[in-house]
Amino acid sequence: MRKVVGVIGGMGPDATVDFMSRVIAFTDASRDQDHARMLVDNNPSIPCRQQALLGKGDDPGPVMAGMARGLEASGADFLVMPCNTAHAFADAVRAAVSIPLLSIVDVTVAACRDHAAVGLLTTKGCLAARVYQDAFAATGSKLIAPDDAEFATLMELIFAIKAGDRSPAIGERMRELGEALVARGATAVIGGCTEITLVLSDGMLSAPLVSSTDELARATADVCAGRRELEAG
Amino acid sequence: MRKVVGVIGGMGPDATVDFMSRVIAFTDASRDQDHARMLVDNNPSIPCRQQALLGKGDDPGPVMAGMARGLEASGADFLVMPCNTAHAFADAVRAAVSIPLLSIVDVTVAACRDHAAVGLLTTKGCLAARVYQDAFAATGSKLIAPDDAEFATLMELIFAIKAGDRSPAIGERMRELGEALVARGATAVIGGCTEITLVLSDGMLSAPLVSSTDELARATADVCAGRRELEAG
Repeated sequence: MRKVVGVIGGMGPDATVDFMSRVIAFTDASRDQDHARMLVDNNPSIPCRQQALLGKGDDPGPVMAGMARGLEASGADFLVMPCNTAHAFADAVRAAVSIPLLSIVDVTVAACRDHAAVGLLTTKGCLAARVYQDAFAATGSKLIAPDDAEFATLMELIFAIKAGDRSPAIGERMRELGEALVARGATAVIGGCTEITLVLSDGMLSAPLVSSTDELARATADVCAGRRELEAG
Repeated sequence: MRKVVGVIGGMGPDATVDFMSRVIAFTDASRDQDHARMLVDNNPSIPCRQQALLGKGDDPGPVMAGMARGLEASGADFLVMPCNTAHAFADAVRAAVSIPLLSIVDVTVAACRDHAAVGLLTTKGCLAARVYQDAFAATGSKLIAPDDAEFATLMELIFAIKAGDRSPAIGERMRELGEALVARGATAVIGGCTEITLVLSDGMLSAPLVSSTDELARATADVCAGRRELEAG
């Protein structure tokens, strides 16, 4: 029996749609009926995760927990959040439901297992919340993050993408930020924000790009198809 | 207050994702929080509409009605189905809920108001169910549909698209089918299947293409933003 995925979405809305299209692409199907069922709450009015993590805005946790409960009630067997920064609030989601959350951070870290030094392109809030640092602590790999000036550029690009700009110029500036991490020793770079992976794809950097969106989409397709097991909790 | 749209999706899964991305594109927004909330049941296991309409398969109406009830219970203010053929079963959906269904057929027919002769590219099942013929009966416009040989090609292309082929070759063959309707007098051609509009876009034909996906996405964005009213029932 196929599993139904519940998607806590809208962070941002385009990133959720991109995630869905990658799940479909990773599914081995030749007709509609071979695909996985996705229950999606694409709710862009979740309070801003960046503001909350920098201590300047409402806690998005209760809204995300309510969405999780709604998806569970609608029949989801497990949950995903195609947003890395949102995983700073993963405990609020897990506490709200009895179905498992497949973590975008866990699957992305697992995909970096062969790299001793990994570059991390993510949001300032995600870094401040130590979402990736804590996950990497157990692996022994070194994380290389942008410096303050690079972060200013990175956040500017992320908000431009959220406003609808996915032009080659934005992609080029994102590529430069990733390449700077390679120059500092990274042998792989994590696209650790689902907005970043709207403009940056594998092959654009001189090192492999580990797309958090692709890793979560592949794992989601695997769970839906029964090729991967998830533990509750 | 923004309205929440409930999307009865999965017919096919890629067409639903395409519809969502067009709603986002038609929304005037510069940050996540400006976008509309979409509750989506992307359920590819709805029984095949083509088979049912040709008298050879299970009735998809009860499954669609159940999805509609689930979306209403989850908080949807109105419903859409980004699938033209599914509107042969619209009565089953309307009977199941107390919120309105914004019809892809109604908005597409309205977009053709200036044309006395309109070409229709849609599925065999949609044509057999007279979904568009009945809607056009009140307008006085003439509908020009593919002949039997063209329909055989059209259905072959639609199922190739559902299987993941959106290559230029498929688009070119679809363009030829549309152009044949223009040669027979159509001054506009309806892309009346949300798979067709994955490969055929306005500008590819010598007459305007009226994309049912775009018409529904635009109307959905308008209702969500409060720029368009809907009546229940």
